[in-house]
Amino acid sequence: MAMTGVIRPGHAQLRVLNLEEGIHHYRDVLGMQETGRDDQGRVYLKCWEEHDHSSLVLREADSAGLDFFAFKVLDKATLDRLDGRLREYGLPTERIPAGEMLETGERVRFTLPSGHQIELYAEKTRVGNGLGHVNPNPWNAAAEKGIAPLRLDHCLLYGPNVAKVQEIFEKVLGFQLVERSLTPEGDANMGIWLTCSNKVHDIAFVEYPEPGKLHHLSFLLSSWDKVLRAADIMSMNSVPVDIGPTRHGITQGATIYAWDPSGNRFETFMGGYTVYPDHEVLTWTFEGLGEGGGLDFAQRKLHESFLTVVT
Amino acid sequence: MAMTGVIRPGHAQLRVLNLEEGIHHYRDVLGMQETGRDDQGRVYLKCWEEHDHSSLVLREADSAGLDFFAFKVLDKATLDRLDGRLREYGLPTERIPAGEMLETGERVRFTLPSGHQIELYAEKTRVGNGLGHVNPNPWNAAAEKGIAPLRLDHCLLYGPNVAKVQEIFEKVLGFQLVERSLTPEGDANMGIWLTCSNKVHDIAFVEYPEPGKLHHLSFLLSSWDKVLRAADIMSMNSVPVDIGPTRHGITQGATIYAWDPSGNRFETFMGGYTVYPDHEVLTWTFEGLGEGGGLDFAQRKLHESFLTVVT
Amino acid sequence: MAMTGVIRPGHAQLRVLNLEEGIHHYRDVLGMQETGRDDQGRVYLKCWEEHDHSSLVLREADSAGLDFFAFKVLDKATLDRLDGRLREYGLPTERIPAGEMLETGERVRFTLPSGHQIELYAEKTRVGNGLGHVNPNPWNAAAEKGIAPLRLDHCLLYGPNVAKVQEIFEKVLGFQLVERSLTPEGDANMGIWLTCSNKVHDIAFVEYPEPGKLHHLSFLLSSWDKVLRAADIMSMNSVPVDIGPTRHGITQGATIYAWDPSGNRFETFMGGYTVYPDHEVLTWTFEGLGEGGGLDFAQRKLHESFLTVVT
Amino acid sequence: MAMTGVIRPGHAQLRVLNLEEGIHHYRDVLGMQETGRDDQGRVYLKCWEEHDHSSLVLREADSAGLDFFAFKVLDKATLDRLDGRLREYGLPTERIPAGEMLETGERVRFTLPSGHQIELYAEKTRVGNGLGHVNPNPWNAAAEKGIAPLRLDHCLLYGPNVAKVQEIFEKVLGFQLVERSLTPEGDANMGIWLTCSNKVHDIAFVEYPEPGKLHHLSFLLSSWDKVLRAADIMSMNSVPVDIGPTRHGITQGATIYAWDPSGNRFETFMGGYTVYPDHEVLTWTFEGLGEGGGLDFAQRKLHESFLTVVT
Repeated sequence: MAMTGVIRPGHAQLRVLNLEEGIHHYRDVLGMQETGRDDQGRVYLKCWEEHDHSSLVLREADSAGLDFFAFKVLDKATLDRLDGRLREYGLPTERIPAGEMLETGERVRFTLPSGHQIELYAEKTRVGNGLGHVNPNPWNAAAEKGIAPLRLDHCLLYGPNVAKVQEIFEKVLGFQLVERSLTPEGDANMGIWLTCSNKVHDIAFVEYPEPGKLHHLSFLLSSWDKVLRAADIMSMNSVPVDIGPTRHGITQGATIYAWDPSGNRFETFMGGYTVYPDHEVLTWTFEGLGEGGGLDFAQRKLHESFLTVVT
Repeated sequence: MAMTGVIRPGHAQLRVLNLEEGIHHYRDVLGMQETGRDDQGRVYLKCWEEHDHSSLVLREADSAGLDFFAFKVLDKATLDRLDGRLREYGLPTERIPAGEMLETGERVRFTLPSGHQIELYAEKTRVGNGLGHVNPNPWNAAAEKGIAPLRLDHCLLYGPNVAKVQEIFEKVLGFQLVERSLTPEGDANMGIWLTCSNKVHDIAFVEYPEPGKLHHLSFLLSSWDKVLRAADIMSMNSVPVDIGPTRHGITQGATIYAWDPSGNRFETFMGGYTVYPDHEVLTWTFEGLGEGGGLDFAQRKLHESFLTVVT
Repeated sequence: MAMTGVIRPGHAQLRVLNLEEGIHHYRDVLGMQETGRDDQGRVYLKCWEEHDHSSLVLREADSAGLDFFAFKVLDKATLDRLDGRLREYGLPTERIPAGEMLETGERVRFTLPSGHQIELYAEKTRVGNGLGHVNPNPWNAAAEKGIAPLRLDHCLLYGPNVAKVQEIFEKVLGFQLVERSLTPEGDANMGIWLTCSNKVHDIAFVEYPEPGKLHHLSFLLSSWDKVLRAADIMSMNSVPVDIGPTRHGITQGATIYAWDPSGNRFETFMGGYTVYPDHEVLTWTFEGLGEGGGLDFAQRKLHESFLTVVT
Repeated sequence: MAMTGVIRPGHAQLRVLNLEEGIHHYRDVLGMQETGRDDQGRVYLKCWEEHDHSSLVLREADSAGLDFFAFKVLDKATLDRLDGRLREYGLPTERIPAGEMLETGERVRFTLPSGHQIELYAEKTRVGNGLGHVNPNPWNAAAEKGIAPLRLDHCLLYGPNVAKVQEIFEKVLGFQLVERSLTPEGDANMGIWLTCSNKVHDIAFVEYPEPGKLHHLSFLLSSWDKVLRAADIMSMNSVPVDIGPTRHGITQGATIYAWDPSGNRFETFMGGYTVYPDHEVLTWTFEGLGEGGGLDFAQRKLHESFLTVVT
C-alpha cells in the first residue's frame, strides 16, 4: 500500500449556539446529509460523496468553536502504532470507546500544544455515496442539494506553539509540510499547511495567542462554476460572506470564506495542486500573505478578519 | 510519511515514426516543454507544472508504441526494496545505470506478463515549474502554451495476463485496484484501473492478445473548460480525435482521446474522484463498459476503436 | 426602439408518439415547467427563465415532427404589417383566433416553400420567471430541475427551396443571414442560419427533398459546465445522444444533439457570438461542414445522421 | 431588419496620465490590439473579436477620465435621422468630420445633461477579427493574449440629471430601460441600465453631483473561468482590484472592477440575461443595491468606492 498511516480528515465536532439553526445551515444550505442523532443530542452529517457515516457532528453549546478534529487511519494496527508514537513523543492520549460517536470505532484523542483536541480512529460505518458499486453513475440528485460539497477537506486552526505542532504532525503523524507563511520578522513559521496525502492540505495552523481556536472548516467543490453557485446560494440564504470568491495564492485554491449562524467560519473551495513526497515547501513572507496575494490573490490584501476572527 | 513506495508516474518513452513531427505534436500542439536531447537522438519533454526534468521521451523508430513506462519511487532505499520484492516474486530485473537517460538516476527495469517494460527510479533532476518557491504565482505563460496539460497522469496498456499484472501491482508494488471492467462472460477482469496515490488511476490495463501494446498516454487538465480548449486546439492543428469530448463512466474523468502523428493515442482529461485505501472497488460489467457508459458516459456505446486500435 | 419587427422564437408545437413519455422527457428530464393543458389534449411547457406562458406545445400524434414554429413580434401593429407584407410577397396567411392556444393572442400562420408552417403572434400571457421584479435573485431552484435550459433558442428545419425561404426571411420578415453552408457543387446555399436579433441564430434551414421536416429544436444553456451536466442527465435517463458534447464550427456553439422518446431531435447548447447588422456572412464549404469542423469542430467529420435523420 | 437605429457601443476615448503606462495596461495586460496612432498622439486599440478598427482611444492628459463614448448606428441615413431627432429634442449637435479619428466616418456629437459627450457614427473601417470568413476557426492566439476580452461592452457614467438622460436615451435614441436602482428615498431613479440591443446593458448612468464622470468601461469575457483568469492576470501585473470576483445582482453579470494606472476603473465580466422589447424593468431599492446584493451579490454590501471613486 503506497498510502499508509493517517489517510484523511474524518470528522469534526462543532459547537453551535442553536442546534436547529446549525442543522438548517449545514443540511439545507450547505447541503450535507443528516445521518443520525445520538442520545447526547448531537447531530451527524456527511457530504454527499463521502462514503463514511459522518464527517460533521454538531453539538449545541454556549460558545461556538471546535470540540475536536479527527483523522481516519489505515487500520487498527496503525491506530495502536500512532497511539504509541504519540505517547513516546510525550503527548498523553485518551481512548474513547467505540460507539461513543454513532457508527464510529475506538478513537485515540490527544491535545496539541496549540490547545486543539485531535482524534485518530480506524473504523466508521460505510454508508456509501448512493451511487452503488456496479456501473455507477458519476453523481445523483444529492450532488445538487444546497451547495453540495464533495467532502470535508481540511481545517485551519489558530493557537500557540505552531512550531511544536508542526513537529508533531511531521515527525509523529507522518504529515508533510506543503506551504508556510512567515512571521513579520521572518524568523519563524506563522502559518503551516500540512498534508497526509496528495492533497494540497489536510490541516493547517496559524500562530495565535489563544489556544484551541477554529479559523475554518473547509469543504471541497468540483469546479470554479460551483464556487460561483456556492456564492449565489450563500447570498440567497443570507449567509454572511467573509472573503471571496477569490483565489488563495497559498495552495492556489479558489475559495469563499463565510460564517455559519453561530459565527463559525467555513470555506467552500476548489482546486489546489497535487502534492508528492518530493514536493519542495513553498514559503510566503508576511508581506506575501497580504500584498503578495497569499490570502487573496485577486485583491492582494490581508483582510483584517483573517487574523482576528476565530471561534 | 503517509505516502511511501511508488509515488507517481515518472516518464514514458514513446516511439514515433518521424521525430520532427513528434516534437511538433508534443511540444507545439500539446504544449510540453523540451528539456533536452541526448546522444541517442532522444528528445525529452515535461509538462509545465511538473518539477522533474522530463516525463516524456520521444524516440524515432520504424513502429510506433511504448518502449517503457516508469514510476518514481520515494527514495533509493525504496528502489532497492522494490527491486528485491520483484525478484522474490520471480520477475527478473535489470539495472539501468544513472545517466542513461538525461538527468535521471539509476533505473530498475522489468517486464510484465503483459509484455510491457516498466521502470522504477528514485532520482531525477528537479528543474522546477518556473513559479519559484517564495510568494509564487499560481501559473505563468507556460500554462497556456498549446493544450498545456499539468502532468503526465497515467497510461492505459493492452496485453495478455491482466490477472497476473494486477497481482504484481497490488502485492509487489503496493498499488490499489480502484475500478475494473469484466469480460463478456463476467468471470474475469478485462480491464483494471490501479492507483499508487489518491488519484483515481496511475496506470490501467486491458486484456489483449498481443503483448506490450499502448492504448494511450494520458495528460491532466485543470477544468472542463480546458477540455473544450484542448478540443479546439486539436481541431485547429488537424489532430485526429478518436472519442470525445465526453465523460468516462469509469473514473468519472472528462476526456478526449486523440492520436499523435505516429498513431499513438493520447488523452487529455480532467476530473475523477479522490481515492483512499478504504475505497471499495467499482465494477463495470462488459455491457456497462459500452451501453452502461463506462467508456463514453454521454453516448453509452462501446466505440470499436477502444478495443482494436493500439500501438 | 432599436429592436423592431420579429423579436424572438416564441413557441413550437411538436408531435410526440406518446404524450406521457413526451411530458416525462420535456418536463422531468429536460426540466421545462408544465404550464397548462387544453381541451385538445395539448400540453404546454416553458423553460424556467422564459417569462411568457409557454414555448413548447406537445401534441400526441401518429408521427413525430413539428406542427409549426412561431415567432413573437413587437406588437399588434407589427403583426398586421408583417401579415400584409407576407400577402404582398404572395404567401397566403391564415389568422388563428386568440385563445386557440392557451394564453396566446391571435396568430398569423403561413407555409414556407420548404413546407414548414410558421406563425407570428404579438401576445402571450406573461407568467414570469419566478424571480420577481424587485431586488431579484439571479436564479432559483427551477434553474436546476433537470437539464433546465434558459429558453427555446432556435430550430433547424429541413425542406426544399431554401433559397426561397432565405428570401422570405430576409426581405419580408427582416431577418439577417449570419452563416451559410454551400452545396457540394458550391453553387448554392445548402444551409442557412438566420437571426432576428443579436443572437447567432433564431432559425436555420437545410435543403432537403422532403418538405416540412424537423432537424432539431434547440434549448440554451448558460455554460460549458452545464453542457456536461446535460450530457450526464441525458445518460442517467437513457436519452439517446446523436452528437456531442462538442463545438459546432458553425455559430461556435458548444452542443449536444439527442433524441426525445418520439425520435424528435433536440439540442442543448451554449455559446455563439454576438451578431450585429454589419456582420459579414460566414461561409462553410461542403467540405467545411464536415472535415472543416462546421458540424463537429472537435471531430471534423460529417456525421451521417446530420443529413439523414429528421422527423 | 429587426435591429435598427443605434446598434452598439463603438468607441470610447479615455484620458490617461501617462500614455506608455496606459498602452501597457490596455494592450499588454488587458490584451487589446493596437491598431494605430494618429498625429494628435492618440493610440487606437480593439478587442480581439471586434471587427471594426478600434473601440478604445487613449489620449494623454493631465487628468484621467472619459472624453466621449460613441455608438455605431445602422447607416448614414440613421445618423442623419438621429441627429435631427436630437436637435428637435433641443440638444445641440456637432458634426466631427470623417477622418478626425483614424478609419472612422463622420461623427455626430452632443452633450448629455449629465455632462457626458456622446457620439454617433455610421462608418468605421472593418479590419476583421483575424478568423476569416470561410470555414473559420472559433478563436486564435489573440484570444489568449492578456485578459483578452471579446469586446468593449458598455460603460457606467456618473453625473447629474439622470432622469433627463433616461428620457433622451429612451425617447430620442430608442434605448430600453432594463434595470434601475432607486434613491434612498425611493422617489427617483438613482441608477439606470439601458440597452439598444438584446444585451442586458449597453450604457448605464448613476446620479452624481459632478458632471461628466466615468465610473467604468466594461469589457466582455466568455466564461466565469475567464473571470478567474482575469483576476489572476490582474494580480500578476499588480493591477489594483476594486471589487470581485463576484456577481452583480443587477444584470446578473459576474465581474471584477479594477483600476488602470491612471485610476480609470474598468470592468471585466461575463454573463447577464437576454433582453427583449417586452422585458419588464427590474427595480433595485437603495437597500437592494447594497444589502440586497445589487452591487455585490456574494457579499451583499455597498462598497463605498462604488459611490465615491470616479474619474
